[in-house]
Amino acid sequence: MTEGTSNEHQVQPPSGLGVAMVGHAFMGAVHSQAWRNVHRFFDLPLTPRMVALGGRDAQRVKEAAGRFGWSSVETDWRALIERDDVDLVDICTPGDTHAEIAIAALNAGKHVLCEKPLANTVAEAERMTEAAERARANGVYSMVAFNYRRVPALALARKLVEEGRIGEVRHVRAVYLQDWLADEDAPMTWRLRKEQAGSGALGDIGAHIVDATQFVTGDVLTGVAGFTHTFVPRRPGPGGTEEPVTVDDCAVFTGRFASGAVATFEATRYALGRKNAMRIEINGSRGSLSFDFEAMNDLWFYDAEEPGATAGFRRIVVTEADHPYLKAWWPPGHLLGYEHTFTHEIADLLTAIGTKTAPQPSFADGLRVQRVLAAVERSAAEGTRWEQVDSTT
Amino acid sequence: MTEGTSNEHQVQPPSGLGVAMVGHAFMGAVHSQAWRNVHRFFDLPLTPRMVALGGRDAQRVKEAAGRFGWSSVETDWRALIERDDVDLVDICTPGDTHAEIAIAALNAGKHVLCEKPLANTVAEAERMTEAAERARANGVYSMVAFNYRRVPALALARKLVEEGRIGEVRHVRAVYLQDWLADEDAPMTWRLRKEQAGSGALGDIGAHIVDATQFVTGDVLTGVAGFTHTFVPRRPGPGGTEEPVTVDDCAVFTGRFASGAVATFEATRYALGRKNAMRIEINGSRGSLSFDFEAMNDLWFYDAEEPGATAGFRRIVVTEADHPYLKAWWPPGHLLGYEHTFTHEIADLLTAIGTKTAPQPSFADGLRVQRVLAAVERSAAEGTRWEQVDSTT
Amino acid sequence: MTEGTSNEHQVQPPSGLGVAMVGHAFMGAVHSQAWRNVHRFFDLPLTPRMVALGGRDAQRVKEAAGRFGWSSVETDWRALIERDDVDLVDICTPGDTHAEIAIAALNAGKHVLCEKPLANTVAEAERMTEAAERARANGVYSMVAFNYRRVPALALARKLVEEGRIGEVRHVRAVYLQDWLADEDAPMTWRLRKEQAGSGALGDIGAHIVDATQFVTGDVLTGVAGFTHTFVPRRPGPGGTEEPVTVDDCAVFTGRFASGAVATFEATRYALGRKNAMRIEINGSRGSLSFDFEAMNDLWFYDAEEPGATAGFRRIVVTEADHPYLKAWWPPGHLLGYEHTFTHEIADLLTAIGTKTAPQPSFADGLRVQRVLAAVERSAAEGTRWEQVDSTT
Amino acid sequence: MTEGTSNEHQVQPPSGLGVAMVGHAFMGAVHSQAWRNVHRFFDLPLTPRMVALGGRDAQRVKEAAGRFGWSSVETDWRALIERDDVDLVDICTPGDTHAEIAIAALNAGKHVLCEKPLANTVAEAERMTEAAERARANGVYSMVAFNYRRVPALALARKLVEEGRIGEVRHVRAVYLQDWLADEDAPMTWRLRKEQAGSGALGDIGAHIVDATQFVTGDVLTGVAGFTHTFVPRRPGPGGTEEPVTVDDCAVFTGRFASGAVATFEATRYALGRKNAMRIEINGSRGSLSFDFEAMNDLWFYDAEEPGATAGFRRIVVTEADHPYLKAWWPPGHLLGYEHTFTHEIADLLTAIGTKTAPQPSFADGLRVQRVLAAVERSAAEGTRWEQVDSTT
Repeated sequence: MTEGTSNEHQVQPPSGLGVAMVGHAFMGAVHSQAWRNVHRFFDLPLTPRMVALGGRDAQRVKEAAGRFGWSSVETDWRALIERDDVDLVDICTPGDTHAEIAIAALNAGKHVLCEKPLANTVAEAERMTEAAERARANGVYSMVAFNYRRVPALALARKLVEEGRIGEVRHVRAVYLQDWLADEDAPMTWRLRKEQAGSGALGDIGAHIVDATQFVTGDVLTGVAGFTHTFVPRRPGPGGTEEPVTVDDCAVFTGRFASGAVATFEATRYALGRKNAMRIEINGSRGSLSFDFEAMNDLWFYDAEEPGATAGFRRIVVTEADHPYLKAWWPPGHLLGYEHTFTHEIADLLTAIGTKTAPQPSFADGLRVQRVLAAVERSAAEGTRWEQVDSTT
Repeated sequence: MTEGTSNEHQVQPPSGLGVAMVGHAFMGAVHSQAWRNVHRFFDLPLTPRMVALGGRDAQRVKEAAGRFGWSSVETDWRALIERDDVDLVDICTPGDTHAEIAIAALNAGKHVLCEKPLANTVAEAERMTEAAERARANGVYSMVAFNYRRVPALALARKLVEEGRIGEVRHVRAVYLQDWLADEDAPMTWRLRKEQAGSGALGDIGAHIVDATQFVTGDVLTGVAGFTHTFVPRRPGPGGTEEPVTVDDCAVFTGRFASGAVATFEATRYALGRKNAMRIEINGSRGSLSFDFEAMNDLWFYDAEEPGATAGFRRIVVTEADHPYLKAWWPPGHLLGYEHTFTHEIADLLTAIGTKTAPQPSFADGLRVQRVLAAVERSAAEGTRWEQVDSTT
Repeated sequence: MTEGTSNEHQVQPPSGLGVAMVGHAFMGAVHSQAWRNVHRFFDLPLTPRMVALGGRDAQRVKEAAGRFGWSSVETDWRALIERDDVDLVDICTPGDTHAEIAIAALNAGKHVLCEKPLANTVAEAERMTEAAERARANGVYSMVAFNYRRVPALALARKLVEEGRIGEVRHVRAVYLQDWLADEDAPMTWRLRKEQAGSGALGDIGAHIVDATQFVTGDVLTGVAGFTHTFVPRRPGPGGTEEPVTVDDCAVFTGRFASGAVATFEATRYALGRKNAMRIEINGSRGSLSFDFEAMNDLWFYDAEEPGATAGFRRIVVTEADHPYLKAWWPPGHLLGYEHTFTHEIADLLTAIGTKTAPQPSFADGLRVQRVLAAVERSAAEGTRWEQVDSTT
Repeated sequence: MTEGTSNEHQVQPPSGLGVAMVGHAFMGAVHSQAWRNVHRFFDLPLTPRMVALGGRDAQRVKEAAGRFGWSSVETDWRALIERDDVDLVDICTPGDTHAEIAIAALNAGKHVLCEKPLANTVAEAERMTEAAERARANGVYSMVAFNYRRVPALALARKLVEEGRIGEVRHVRAVYLQDWLADEDAPMTWRLRKEQAGSGALGDIGAHIVDATQFVTGDVLTGVAGFTHTFVPRRPGPGGTEEPVTVDDCAVFTGRFASGAVATFEATRYALGRKNAMRIEINGSRGSLSFDFEAMNDLWFYDAEEPGATAGFRRIVVTEADHPYLKAWWPPGHLLGYEHTFTHEIADLLTAIGTKTAPQPSFADGLRVQRVLAAVERSAAEGTRWEQVDSTT
């Protein structure tokens, strides 16, 4: 940069789609980061405006809005979805509130992004899916926030499966291992109450591996058998009390995909030392893929078309410009993190809305996951009996 | 070494226990290597003499004996077990012959080492166990050859569990992944015929992970639910023929240990790129352990007693002099391989016989594994229904 | 969230420190991301306002400002540093411009953040350091942007060294491996012209490992010996021309720290398959540390105080709330990426300015790195002769 | 196996090449294991007979012979090499004795296998090489025991380089890291006395990485610059005494291959937590190779001919039947260990002798390594000055 004349220029503020978000805890924080930055990296047909944040506690929601960058607040989500400056509602509240908010928003003509699991019951998820399909006929779109589909390594995995690089899928094995409840003295939280959370590890993290494996294989689970377990049935509540844990601590199940592929699943919050080990391995007739979220920038690919003497699982560092989503970011080897999966999700959502295309994963995809979880719960209740996954539309 | 007087000295040939082996394929080769060398590294109360090799084809058994170092051959195993110079019979034949040979040998007062699976049926395994217990009362010992118990890393894992380093076991997840059948054109072998092999992946490699997890946890599986699958139902036989595959290609099942620990298992020969990935992870209330045979010298240990900021799975390179079996071998970091697990097994067997102690794993341990596999097969036949593992003695 | 009265509230726009940035290529993009978001995650005494972006081309800088979120633009950096609403100048231009801009900004009473390497020559770096020290006496602060100090894993490494967990440092080995020039047909860029870039791999990425190892050890290099090499001496320029490459493609050198520790270094852009493998291993008298930026969330720690039988390099997933910088972010196992190192850098810078503390690394630290690089170049010119690193203040 | 007539057959004892070994410590143990077993796995033109073991102490050598399987003993190596039943002498003594024994054996018409380093001085190595070349003219062969050339993964690496799979070699980086001296209180051993060991880490393990990189690249080092260091200058001797350490504890150096490739080397016994980390990475113009002895069954290969989106370092588990040496061993994924490198070495030696071909690595190869080490020592003595490696024949 050399000398030159001063040439000050006021840049225009962004304009576009008015976004409101309900809920401002962990998910609210990471969604906000994505809303704030998505248009800085992706060329989008619509630029989000962060117009309003909803939360029950006036003081706390105001503080959160200031921190996260929302222009205004509402303490009543109904008021929020009625606002003219709101075009899209992003639902980051616990699962028991999803159906009511989402359906109301869709009916009010607002696009909806809803955190997973879509709902706490299949019945709710069905009603939400119906509402989504009605709205879509009117150009109002919805998406369920299975962000792991937007891990570049898993998006690449999907692409490789689609291109036939691993052939016909034979085996799917997926675990989601965390350890934040391994300590028996960890306190009670809303996530351990069935009425709020719907289920425990099964619905929270099991949902992710069900969706992710269905996404990567492009297939659906048709039957499952398994059980759940609660290792620590009571937890310390506030003020020296004890409260019963009413959800599962872990779930294990076997399953079958429509193609006949054989599957195993495990979700737990008691795998000491595993912090967020969402691991998927898929073996096909021509190759294999392997992924671990704790090294989320890597995809391991085994290509059986290679001569045996030089075949091996190769570690693809998924940071090249021709990898999914990567053109927007940094040079090769400069890693992305957890939050970027949300940025990608919202980039895809805005692109879909802007181009009047139905975004993926849809509420119907979310319902499909709920039905798998429900089948696991039925199987668990019936001595691990094989349960078909309901596939009525 | 400096100058000195010539001092030639004829070293005495080894003496001790007369050993005969039946079968001389893959298992015969690796057992022979162990018999030839065990006393070179371990201080033993008995030194093996490799007196006879049994095999049906006179020409082939003679060649094998020459190659493997056996002093004589027999084409009739009955003749072999009657020989006075034979004190121990090592059975390396397919599973359908184990019961007859083992029982005859035990009744003839010969110690027995029997390859796994102990038998092709629970009934056979029960008769073998009875024979073993009768023989033991007479000072005649027997062992089933679950060699993975003698991987130093798994022996160390057992020790850490025993010392309470991972607390109470909560999760067991084990897979045994191979890929040698992934090619649909791979030819038929005896391992794919039910009448010889008993079962497929389940009995061959599933047996190993059932035994190994029971060994490391010091616990037993009490119930299971799962299914098996045959991906390629027909294989090329000799001369352009086709032959039906009558065993499973893979097995998946969930289970429970007596302690209540939750378990998942998978055995397959179709996981492309996984050559011998016998993987075990165990999560307890104080720590975790993880192992993969494809890096068999490593044990990964997570100690939750460490402060969080410096806690992590540590890779223990199990080659230190104070690791199990390692005092006999090389300096730290100079790795051992697959075959050494058999050397350790036979060292333990000889020590047990020499000190008149019952060797481990016993035929009863082998029977216990068979009963688990049988429960998996019953569950598979009954729509993955939960099946108790028979625990009658 | 339940029903409630509408309670709209206009959140106040942030206020605080006026920031201007010069340069808007790769470094400009990542710095902008940090400036936009730092106060969303960290509690800071000052909130940055992104008031102006400087760049020579009016059209391009205007576009960049819109994309990156800067409120106005300047095409003359002199105009930019004279603006009253600018309190801090962030220099993201090539190295040949650093000295002039930084010194002018400091003299104008603006805090300065300057990208590395601090300058293209030791003489420039010395003048910058003098200007920084004069300014500091007046409460005007400066920092050189060695962002790798803010990788949480390396910050944790520093902490462990400081706490004596690895004892006295004996060995340092560091490599920075990239491969973006491995293709002989890759086109010419400013980074390959000595007059703009100062040096090649040595100054660009070698500088990072010199600074990072000095940071983690808390020590300084006192002598070095090595050489550089240019594998591809000519590169395609625009329009079918060819242009000479006037910088090194790689540099290798040995060295000594003041403590006597023995060191090796290598920087290259020709290590095919290594995308951004900045790797550091440090062996001390009580333990060791190991790091690879391609798995940047992990720190490997070997604690020799552990009993030998359970000692091993442990993989610390540096995402716990009590790890450096992590309290601001996501739950354990939810990884951070490359860009977060800049967010941390700017958080530390703002905290330092707000609390009137000299930020680290200072221009003097940057000068120290330059002097090491200069010593390497002298050694290379003199047949790898040992060269003392100049330590005059 | 079914009933049949008894068909006892006395197998003929092996016959072939009479082997004598001098020295019976660590190297003697592992060589003995190879001599005992090599013909069990490899089809060889000659079968070794282990006729005599040489050692100074009559009692100890007798015990060792019994344990290792040698038929007789000699306390004077001169007597040993004069025996008519000895065709080959295997030298496993400390380096200061190699020249005298090897030359005498060769002059007596015995083939020689000599442990590395070939000698403690270049002058000795030159005399040995001359003797080896004279002997070879008479059909008497010799080999220096750089066993790492026989790690299957490194043999595969050599093959891939030879086939051009990584193109022209640009970078070689090699370290050999151990930690057995990291404890300052570890006692004195002969390996720390210059008069016996010649040098420390440089000659013991540095020699291995020099030879292995020359082998894999098929090239030779032409110049080096570096230094050595002794961290702990005195060690406890017997009976409370202290003894000076007269060799290096570590060596670091840069270098150039004849092709122009840039190299770095480090050998140390002070890298806490690294037990036998002999690591080699080679970057070429078309790909890269990476190896770590602590995972010795794996070779990592990066093929830059792959499309960028699916390129990555692939982990080849070097246990396939078409990998070097593997046809002799177990099924895929059933790992080999350290000792097998010696079995391979001796298989190659016996094949070479039997087919009247000069075995590799020759004494000339050993001399070439000595000259590199000597150049490092000269460079260290002259302030890391660049030193040409002597290449006179």
